Amino acid sequence: MRADLALVGFGHVGRRFATLLEERRDWLALDYELDCRVIGIATAHHGSVFSAHGIDAVAAAARQAEEPLDAEATSAGDSFDVIRSLARSDSPLKILVETTTLDIAAGQPAIDHVRAALESGCHVVTANKGPAAFAYEELSALAADRGVSFLFEGTVMDGVPIFNLVRDTLPAVDILGFRGVINSTTNHILTALEEGDSFDIALARMQADGIAEADPSLDVDGWDAAAKTAALANVLMRARMTPQGVEREGIGQATARLAMAAKGRGARIRLVASAKRTAGAVATSVRPIELPAGDLLAGLRGVANALILQTDLLGDIAMTQLAGGLTQTAYALLSDLVTVGRRHRPGRSAAAPGRTR
Amino acid sequence: MRADLALVGFGHVGRRFATLLEERRDWLALDYELDCRVIGIATAHHGSVFSAHGIDAVAAAARQAEEPLDAEATSAGDSFDVIRSLARSDSPLKILVETTTLDIAAGQPAIDHVRAALESGCHVVTANKGPAAFAYEELSALAADRGVSFLFEGTVMDGVPIFNLVRDTLPAVDILGFRGVINSTTNHILTALEEGDSFDIALARMQADGIAEADPSLDVDGWDAAAKTAALANVLMRARMTPQGVEREGIGQATARLAMAAKGRGARIRLVASAKRTAGAVATSVRPIELPAGDLLAGLRGVANALILQTDLLGDIAMTQLAGGLTQTAYALLSDLVTVGRRHRPGRSAAAPGRTR
Repeated sequence: MRADLALVGFGHVGRRFATLLEERRDWLALDYELDCRVIGIATAHHGSVFSAHGIDAVAAAARQAEEPLDAEATSAGDSFDVIRSLARSDSPLKILVETTTLDIAAGQPAIDHVRAALESGCHVVTANKGPAAFAYEELSALAADRGVSFLFEGTVMDGVPIFNLVRDTLPAVDILGFRGVINSTTNHILTALEEGDSFDIALARMQADGIAEADPSLDVDGWDAAAKTAALANVLMRARMTPQGVEREGIGQATARLAMAAKGRGARIRLVASAKRTAGAVATSVRPIELPAGDLLAGLRGVANALILQTDLLGDIAMTQLAGGLTQTAYALLSDLVTVGRRHRPGRSAAAPGRTR
Repeated sequence: MRADLALVGFGHVGRRFATLLEERRDWLALDYELDCRVIGIATAHHGSVFSAHGIDAVAAAARQAEEPLDAEATSAGDSFDVIRSLARSDSPLKILVETTTLDIAAGQPAIDHVRAALESGCHVVTANKGPAAFAYEELSALAADRGVSFLFEGTVMDGVPIFNLVRDTLPAVDILGFRGVINSTTNHILTALEEGDSFDIALARMQADGIAEADPSLDVDGWDAAAKTAALANVLMRARMTPQGVEREGIGQATARLAMAAKGRGARIRLVASAKRTAGAVATSVRPIELPAGDLLAGLRGVANALILQTDLLGDIAMTQLAGGLTQTAYALLSDLVTVGRRHRPGRSAAAPGRTR
């Protein structure tokens, strides 16, 4: 079955997705009968291209930022034009792959991209936290209404399945709350602080290693973790909240002393994201917390992440990601793509029974 | 859709499954359109019953062992007679729920139960490790041939999804190996040894608490972990092996001293199950290993279990079960039941694309 893809956002994640798609082409064809073709790419700063006959996305991913994305493809207007062009494809599967960067104020333009795609009958897979963190109820209802899928496994813990785990493998289990370390940069910094580094030196090293962004405030102020917390709470606990609703405290200079002191007591400081169902609501927070050595989260070093789900039937279960990075995030998009292919094969009713959350 | 079930094996797990099925009846109907009915029960020592009109399995679960299972149902011969009766049901879903106890010599009679059910067009969900540990290739091929499902999520880490996780949420990921703590009794004993208990006292307390069996040799000699290791290796790595092929060393009196000494060094002894792909084969072992404090497995206390999967695309990822028990195992059977329902709805092709392993 042919699947036509438009890549909106073409930074590190989008480019790695393009190459991974090529690396796993045979496998997608053989195991899932999927023949994927990129027909459009939209970037914020280097223009957009579209060709109904397909674009060489691997070549585009290899190009320098200054070169045009694809000289042979029609220049395609802005990101919304590319989505409109995707919607006109006659492929049985039309999929928007959204990888723009997170806007923590309102989740835009990712939400508008997702909405435009779903409204016009395209499936969406995204690694951007904005849509699920700010507008999950609206977008999931829209997807259900149009009989398409809206998937976002890459938004939390990269390729480690969290949303798919709960949806596909934990039927009838109620998620009562969660607690996790879900931001790699801050955990890496905290590990360095425990080794005696100062905050500034630890942060500078993360930036030199490409782990922290040039502007690290999204990470160290806890916003990235808050966006993930909101997405998790919205999807797993139907919280209807935004990142701004998460009680939030980041890490900074003062954390170094706390981290050393905790380590001296055999404990660890971790930036813990948590959610708990209270009377009629879901209380969420992101803050540095001192944890005893025996706590699963205290044991996480470097970029490791973990999420402990508190469930009614299974007690506490945890997923841990010991390594993370670009390939993992790109893989999450690929696994979502496979889910779309599985769900929407011809001859299958699109709406499988089971909770849609 | 109606689903007719036969419960073969009706000990603690089978009885808890029967009550859990009733507790979640509304949810199965509402979310999965499944109307489940128990029509047969076979036990090793208390007879068998069958009624095409349904059996009150909750009442049967509440009865004392000496009472007949159900006075109103026809006495139904042996377990194979019950499976034959199930196969004659006109329900669109006929499911054998196999919960007999593990025979570590050859996996019987569970393998014969599973084979008989699959051959006659019934689906199988089982918590018995024997079929996947001794005969996975044969039984999964038979299931594929007959267009039915053979599921066994409850065999490793109770209700925490491992097999379903890899099959449903990690498409295109190759499992290169694994390493885990997958036997609760021995981990509970090791935790007690670290607190200064002797082996005999620790074991006696586990038995008094109902965690260890009266005959604990399956656990302490590493056979239970070896059976799980074989099942994991067969399913996730296509190893074609039996528990006897696992290099195996258990724990005993001498382990107490080792556990205390390790703890003195800040390390921990854990009974580690592992598998690794070598040239053309899969090398597996179960043995006590000293782990540094930072190792995820070292942090497991009491009955906690964890499995670290070594993958090609995602690096190492781990699932941790912080609480385990009867409800969790019964839940695993229920989640497999839902998977059967999802896969084999009328109007769906039974054979979904994707790896069958």
